[in-house]
Amino acid sequence: MSSDSPEQKNVSRPRVLSGMRPTGKLHLGNYMGALANWVKLQDDYECYFFIADWHALTTDYADTSNVLSNIKEVALDYLAAGLDPKKSVLFVQSLVPQHAELHLLLSMITSVGWLERIPSYKEQQENLADKDLSTYGFLGYPLLQSADILLYQPKFVPVGQDQASHVELTREVARRFNHFYPRRSHSFASELAEAGSEESLHVLPEPQVLLTPAPKLPGTDGRKMSKSYGNTIQLTDPEPVIRQKLKTMVTDPARVRRTDPGDPDKCPVGDLHKVFSTPEKLAEVYDGCRSAGIGCIQCKGWAADALVQILTPIQERRARYTDEDVEAIFEEGSARAQVRAEQTMVEVRSAMRLPSASLRSGGSR
Amino acid sequence: MSSDSPEQKNVSRPRVLSGMRPTGKLHLGNYMGALANWVKLQDDYECYFFIADWHALTTDYADTSNVLSNIKEVALDYLAAGLDPKKSVLFVQSLVPQHAELHLLLSMITSVGWLERIPSYKEQQENLADKDLSTYGFLGYPLLQSADILLYQPKFVPVGQDQASHVELTREVARRFNHFYPRRSHSFASELAEAGSEESLHVLPEPQVLLTPAPKLPGTDGRKMSKSYGNTIQLTDPEPVIRQKLKTMVTDPARVRRTDPGDPDKCPVGDLHKVFSTPEKLAEVYDGCRSAGIGCIQCKGWAADALVQILTPIQERRARYTDEDVEAIFEEGSARAQVRAEQTMVEVRSAMRLPSASLRSGGSR
Ligand code: SF4
Ligand code: SF4
Repeated sequence: MSSDSPEQKNVSRPRVLSGMRPTGKLHLGNYMGALANWVKLQDDYECYFFIADWHALTTDYADTSNVLSNIKEVALDYLAAGLDPKKSVLFVQSLVPQHAELHLLLSMITSVGWLERIPSYKEQQENLADKDLSTYGFLGYPLLQSADILLYQPKFVPVGQDQASHVELTREVARRFNHFYPRRSHSFASELAEAGSEESLHVLPEPQVLLTPAPKLPGTDGRKMSKSYGNTIQLTDPEPVIRQKLKTMVTDPARVRRTDPGDPDKCPVGDLHKVFSTPEKLAEVYDGCRSAGIGCIQCKGWAADALVQILTPIQERRARYTDEDVEAIFEEGSARAQVRAEQTMVEVRSAMRLPSASLRSGGSR
Repeated sequence: MSSDSPEQKNVSRPRVLSGMRPTGKLHLGNYMGALANWVKLQDDYECYFFIADWHALTTDYADTSNVLSNIKEVALDYLAAGLDPKKSVLFVQSLVPQHAELHLLLSMITSVGWLERIPSYKEQQENLADKDLSTYGFLGYPLLQSADILLYQPKFVPVGQDQASHVELTREVARRFNHFYPRRSHSFASELAEAGSEESLHVLPEPQVLLTPAPKLPGTDGRKMSKSYGNTIQLTDPEPVIRQKLKTMVTDPARVRRTDPGDPDKCPVGDLHKVFSTPEKLAEVYDGCRSAGIGCIQCKGWAADALVQILTPIQERRARYTDEDVEAIFEEGSARAQVRAEQTMVEVRSAMRLPSASLRSGGSR
């Protein structure tokens, strides 16, 4: 919003990092739960947003045939949603090998018990019972997430309430790292000068949770919108498809006939209105539904209108990028991320007294 | 031995890889169990020998203050023992980050149960009860070893009998990898042409064990020579120290007085003679000991003579290298190792259909 150059703004803006697995084309739930929030962060934070392709392997190692096309679809959706490579660093995890190196180094100080106790570990093994998730990689995926985060020394991690426990592990790992491996510096004065806050005394500052809204977003069958339920509205769905999906969407089961009154609080379409419609339109929905003044077809038309209004600019942006643009943007972003990641790794290796890039410089900083 | 250039020889010589943890100055047991064998392999194999500094962290993460100096001592011992940078690639694991990347990728297909069942897992946790080895990194160290090996697609891994189970895991992981991720090639003909043997059809050929002799080598107290027992003869011990250590070395407990006959098969000094003395000298030892014709002091003097003869050329070579030489050799070797490792990773990423270096080239090979 201001006319500061990106360089100047980077100095003062707190850093944030977040990412998403490449599961293919994104849907409205992904957008509202993450992307829409990320887009808003871009002006006030120094943002790193990535595509977590290695994470996809933790559950989908047995069939990787779609990974590359999924990366490209998600990359396009990032840009379509409004993530701006001029403002944010957009990158692909596996193009920044430092993620693997920090993961390995942090594995040395991370208790197996911490990982087994992450609630999602047992949950996912049960939910995805058709997959063999008894692998070392699946056990370690929250630690890979911690490495993803700590590698950029961010002040905040924008997440929804349900992911807060993963950030808690990240903070625990950072604490343990800083305990074992204090920053080594030949000048305490220079350290104080650059300190500013207590965290910067540590090599891996504990990131804070930046709670972002994740509104309840039902899919067409009334359950949570999720790729695995096949009930999604894609960011790429054209208007006729959106209208068709809305038409077959479930409604308040008590409203059987046109003349029965309904309750938007018991209706998935009502939930969509709460997220996407103006307060005025929402009032019309409540009144019309409860009095049987409107029919579900009309109500769903209004909801479709609101979705089309949200999705049209996203789809227009999407159409402007060629495959080559997307590749170039994420390759350049990955190169920038590598530079930032290597900066952290130099500090990490020095604190751990490991060789850094050359045997000579290692450990002598 | 022949006058072929290294390049020419590389084409036909089978590749081998082996490494050692940097535990500080090496002793005679390390030399006879590994280095002496490696030196002999150099003319007939394309050799990669490395210093496994990341492995040192699996047990010693709580105090890393010696890692860098230990690396330098081991590097010097490698060269002193006769590993030749003109013949072999000598490198430091942590300077080749591809080790971490392959470890992470292989973690996705490796069962936690496989790792828990490696005999050394529980054994080491019991032996090193003063250290907290309930970490994710310690659980994963045999897999890191597998990645170390597979990264160079070697035909053989020279190991002693006691490490054969680790190579078995490596073969199992390679098998699973090749099952999930067959080599992708646009030309089956070119594949056949370069094949030569069935293994090269796979991205990660299963390496074979090259059993190397590891003679029983007692320390000065009669137990196995080991740094943790404090009973070692270092490769760097000067002649007076060697003679002094031999003087206080335990002998056949049945031989109390000079006039008592003894048995070299029940005497640690006798074991040293079996490894280091000529057959003629060994015969003198058996005769003299069993008949009480020689005293233990004389017998130990002969053993010291043999050790000095082995260690003198090693120490002379050691003295010829400056710190700068050693650093330059291992930095250059690590750069060469990186090139070879990246060659494997390109194949690995392509087979797994992950992006490789750039989004464009990834997966399209
Ligand atoms: S009128 Fe709207 S809110 Fe009410 S039941 Fe029908 S679709 Fe749902
Ligand atoms: S003479 Fe030699 S072999 Fe016999 S007991 Fe003495 S030291 Fe051992």
